[in-house]
Amino acid sequence: MEKLIITKIGGNVIDHTEDLDQFLEDFTKIPDKKMLIHGGGKIATDIAQSMGIQPNLIDGRRITDSEMLKVVVMVYAGLVNKKIVSKLQAFGTNALGLSGADANIITARKREVKEIDYGFVGDIEKINSQQILYFLNEGIVPVIAPLTHDQQGNILNTNADTIAAILATALSQHFQTELFYCIDQPGLLKSLSNPRSIINEVTWEKYQKYKAEGTVSEGMIPKMDTAFSALRSGVSRINICHANALLNVVKGNPMVGSELSI
Amino acid sequence: MEKLIITKIGGNVIDHTEDLDQFLEDFTKIPDKKMLIHGGGKIATDIAQSMGIQPNLIDGRRITDSEMLKVVVMVYAGLVNKKIVSKLQAFGTNALGLSGADANIITARKREVKEIDYGFVGDIEKINSQQILYFLNEGIVPVIAPLTHDQQGNILNTNADTIAAILATALSQHFQTELFYCIDQPGLLKSLSNPRSIINEVTWEKYQKYKAEGTVSEGMIPKMDTAFSALRSGVSRINICHANALLNVVKGNPMVGSELSI
Repeated sequence: MEKLIITKIGGNVIDHTEDLDQFLEDFTKIPDKKMLIHGGGKIATDIAQSMGIQPNLIDGRRITDSEMLKVVVMVYAGLVNKKIVSKLQAFGTNALGLSGADANIITARKREVKEIDYGFVGDIEKINSQQILYFLNEGIVPVIAPLTHDQQGNILNTNADTIAAILATALSQHFQTELFYCIDQPGLLKSLSNPRSIINEVTWEKYQKYKAEGTVSEGMIPKMDTAFSALRSGVSRINICHANALLNVVKGNPMVGSELSI
Repeated sequence: MEKLIITKIGGNVIDHTEDLDQFLEDFTKIPDKKMLIHGGGKIATDIAQSMGIQPNLIDGRRITDSEMLKVVVMVYAGLVNKKIVSKLQAFGTNALGLSGADANIITARKREVKEIDYGFVGDIEKINSQQILYFLNEGIVPVIAPLTHDQQGNILNTNADTIAAILATALSQHFQTELFYCIDQPGLLKSLSNPRSIINEVTWEKYQKYKAEGTVSEGMIPKMDTAFSALRSGVSRINICHANALLNVVKGNPMVGSELSI
């Protein structure tokens, strides 16, 4: 099967223009079919603040109320997505910015209210693989903002890590799919304060041990769980690496990033 | 040649959810290949104000400085575009939101600084008709935000009326192209205060006379000039009508809207 490279970026690389430019230049050099999923960096929070919108947190978890939904749609699908698309076009990559509503590529269901009402947050129901295949086969590079839709006219906020994993899983029916999570650290670290403590090979057993010991930081756990689940569901390869290491990781350098295995 | 319906909306219909919903439901009923170009309504101004960004006007003309560019990208490509796309999807239209940078569909040059520096404003250089054709032939309905790009990584603000006219002209090589400008009035009026004073048939000669007499309002002149130029360059039909009259106009009812002829 043909190879498909799916890359997810978030955090600092989105907030810093020079880092983003370098990353996008590297991304352009990947010769295979590819797509990019991005988060929103800190920009959504900054814009919300400048508009006087207070972040709505319940038990430390962010709630997407209707005001915050407007901000994330503006920032994710507007500011961040078009910045990436126009930069990629300048590098010669035929990027096409997409939310889940565009060409109906990702449908979701508004998360049910149980203990917490997360607001306009969507849990993915369906990936429109045929439509994405059609774009990829035309030489288009999809650049996906972390937004989905409910087919009833509502945009929903959806976690970018989850979108990347579910897309990779769905597309692994058609491609040998490799998924790269680019983060602000060199990979999974034994000690957060020591970037040299990177764990280059993360087996499922090791991961369980690290989780039990508290070696894996709280924030990494959902990302890792989602990634292992994708790996078990047909994705060929998953690596968690720093955004500046993408090309090295794509080439398969075993000393770069954290390679997951089951 | 197959028919292509290009519709441009702006003004009140974008700002009022119920009017927009009705318009999009009507738009969905057009059986031909079609695309939609939208402006930003008053939302960009409102969002800029809420962020404490003052509109920069020189001689009454709006300047797109870097702060305002961020706002228009957020509002046009984000908030407004995704609202329209998600609503169209709910009505069963396979809408795809696009800025000029997406799939490289519209390239522009930053307007040269002469007496006035308009800032990040783009004058269209090239329409990528092949890419748009490819979307249309796949059954996709492009929904275009009034933004272009310079192929050097910059998004540029571009007048939506002009985009509609230039797109219609370029695509008239491939389709029998009809262009509908939906506005807040029933059409071109002899007296702005009297909506019944509509001029249903606007010939080039009549238009020259109205312009000389001052019958055509200042704001309508660039729209009319652009429209006549498109009609002379191969567009089959142009009508200026109220957003709520679109279906009637598409059907060719001669008593609705202002039909242009050369």
